[in-house]
Amino acid sequence: MSDVEDNYLFFEGSEKKATILIDQNQLSLLENFDDDFWQQLVQCGDAHILSSIKNSDCKAFLLSESSLFIWHDRLLIITCGNTQLVRSVEYFIQQVGMDKIQQVIYQRKNEYFAHAQPSTFGDDIKLLSQYMQGKAHRFGELDSHHNYIFHQDNRFQARNNDKTYELLAYQISKKASDKLTTVGLTAKEIRAFLQLETLFSDFILDDFVFDPFGYSINAINGLNYLTIHVTPQESSSYVSIESNVNLIKLAPTFLAILSPKSFDLLSFNEFNFSDLTDTFIPKNYVATSLVSQHLSNNYSVCFSNYILPQQVFSQAATLDLVEQSHAL
Amino acid sequence: MSDVEDNYLFFEGSEKKATILIDQNQLSLLENFDDDFWQQLVQCGDAHILSSIKNSDCKAFLLSESSLFIWHDRLLIITCGNTQLVRSVEYFIQQVGMDKIQQVIYQRKNEYFAHAQPSTFGDDIKLLSQYMQGKAHRFGELDSHHNYIFHQDNRFQARNNDKTYELLAYQISKKASDKLTTVGLTAKEIRAFLQLETLFSDFILDDFVFDPFGYSINAINGLNYLTIHVTPQESSSYVSIESNVNLIKLAPTFLAILSPKSFDLLSFNEFNFSDLTDTFIPKNYVATSLVSQHLSNNYSVCFSNYILPQQVFSQAATLDLVEQSHAL
Repeated sequence: MSDVEDNYLFFEGSEKKATILIDQNQLSLLENFDDDFWQQLVQCGDAHILSSIKNSDCKAFLLSESSLFIWHDRLLIITCGNTQLVRSVEYFIQQVGMDKIQQVIYQRKNEYFAHAQPSTFGDDIKLLSQYMQGKAHRFGELDSHHNYIFHQDNRFQARNNDKTYELLAYQISKKASDKLTTVGLTAKEIRAFLQLETLFSDFILDDFVFDPFGYSINAINGLNYLTIHVTPQESSSYVSIESNVNLIKLAPTFLAILSPKSFDLLSFNEFNFSDLTDTFIPKNYVATSLVSQHLSNNYSVCFSNYILPQQVFSQAATLDLVEQSHAL
Repeated sequence: MSDVEDNYLFFEGSEKKATILIDQNQLSLLENFDDDFWQQLVQCGDAHILSSIKNSDCKAFLLSESSLFIWHDRLLIITCGNTQLVRSVEYFIQQVGMDKIQQVIYQRKNEYFAHAQPSTFGDDIKLLSQYMQGKAHRFGELDSHHNYIFHQDNRFQARNNDKTYELLAYQISKKASDKLTTVGLTAKEIRAFLQLETLFSDFILDDFVFDPFGYSINAINGLNYLTIHVTPQESSSYVSIESNVNLIKLAPTFLAILSPKSFDLLSFNEFNFSDLTDTFIPKNYVATSLVSQHLSNNYSVCFSNYILPQQVFSQAATLDLVEQSHAL
């Protein structure tokens, strides 16, 4: 099973994600913890730190498997592949203590190589439930793209202006995949291809090109963050874009660059989700899922999946029995 | 992981399927093997025989986990849940010998509880490759419904009139799910709901209602067969219909009864797939996948997935942390 990760043809891009808010009256995550602590934390989840950037409001670590953002009052950690993010959350809880934690939110996208994962979402929330009362929901149908969200169920109530967005693009165009798998492609070329220096001109950027391909970038500007992770190989391409900047408004640009066959939009506290998607999602995409739910922590979550209807038959993917038998 | 099967809320309906054609000059599967042999064969895959029907051309066994059909020149075995169908195929190969086998085809639908499966498709074809040269394809995108097909690569060439069809319906309407999960529902009532005695009036029928719900039926008429397996629970509903009768022409009736949010069509040697789907698939469904491939064994395979575009937001599924943590 572990061959999946070794085999660059297939990679589990689908992320696990945790957001933890702490009591600012008791401590500041930026001031009270050093880099060794964060290094320990990400190591618990089987990732390591590649680089970091910071401003007075936020510190962003680029990880071997995605990203960690720290603010005074919260952390956001995203990891992909076969990482065990829940172990990093547990480490944080054990080191900091639940009495200083206001809210834990833990998410997992449905996976495409679930058999290769060290744990299921069920296993993870069972572990978290040892430390807190919680609730869990599935956004999206079982047989389609879906997101599992677990959250602590306590007196914490999110502010209405605490908004975040995810745009997850699948099966990007052959043109985009070819470009992003070009041997020797530089970070500068990928930034240009994704128009990041134009779209996020005021942000500090920190990016990394993986070998043989794959790309991650963190970007911060005051309290604002953006993180993009690119798994470009044609057989299982995936681009995740996550931010507290409104990604629905930016969707037309990213969709024009990537032309994915399918994408998910997920938002926390975007109360105009329906109007915004009506305005900004190109009409050639069709919604297969539309789900919204107001959580007891006062986050209003919207999830949608869109697909590009197919008109023309394509050929089946031929599987190389020698190389790929472990990866399926 | 094994809790998944015990928990009737979620059941892996997605089937594994094997077709094996033998050399009729050397033996007849109907004449040269007794029921004990077939009982042994299905036991190797962790299923058992519930009942059977036969005519001079075909014998059909209803299994605890789907169906086994035997003709003079071939067998078709379909199993769902956490069965190990590939072990039944291996048993057949070991008992009969590859010299009497003309062609092996092995299929797996992508699974929704892949972590609970005892093997992956890759593991299975590695096992089969110990006995034969083969080729494998994936029909459909990784992030959407897809079917893996492995087939023996030898001199065998299928006849053009050797046609089969699958219609796999997901997320059936609440009305259909409610009806099919009614406590105490009889086989006769389910037959009536699915209009089977009208649609297949010349067929011998053999069906079974599972406890607390779930339904399987085999039907035969000369060389023709039909098998339907119903996993009706609203959270993970799935109805598979497989036949050598043209199911594309019957799709309007089944779709009207079940109103699935999504369905797959798969055919072997239906050369008018595109014209038939244009004619018979209701226009409110949109194709997300269209794949066709001519295999080296002369089967022309078409695969498509259709979805019902969503206009209205629904609520997220609430997960019961105590009962369901193992099933996710």
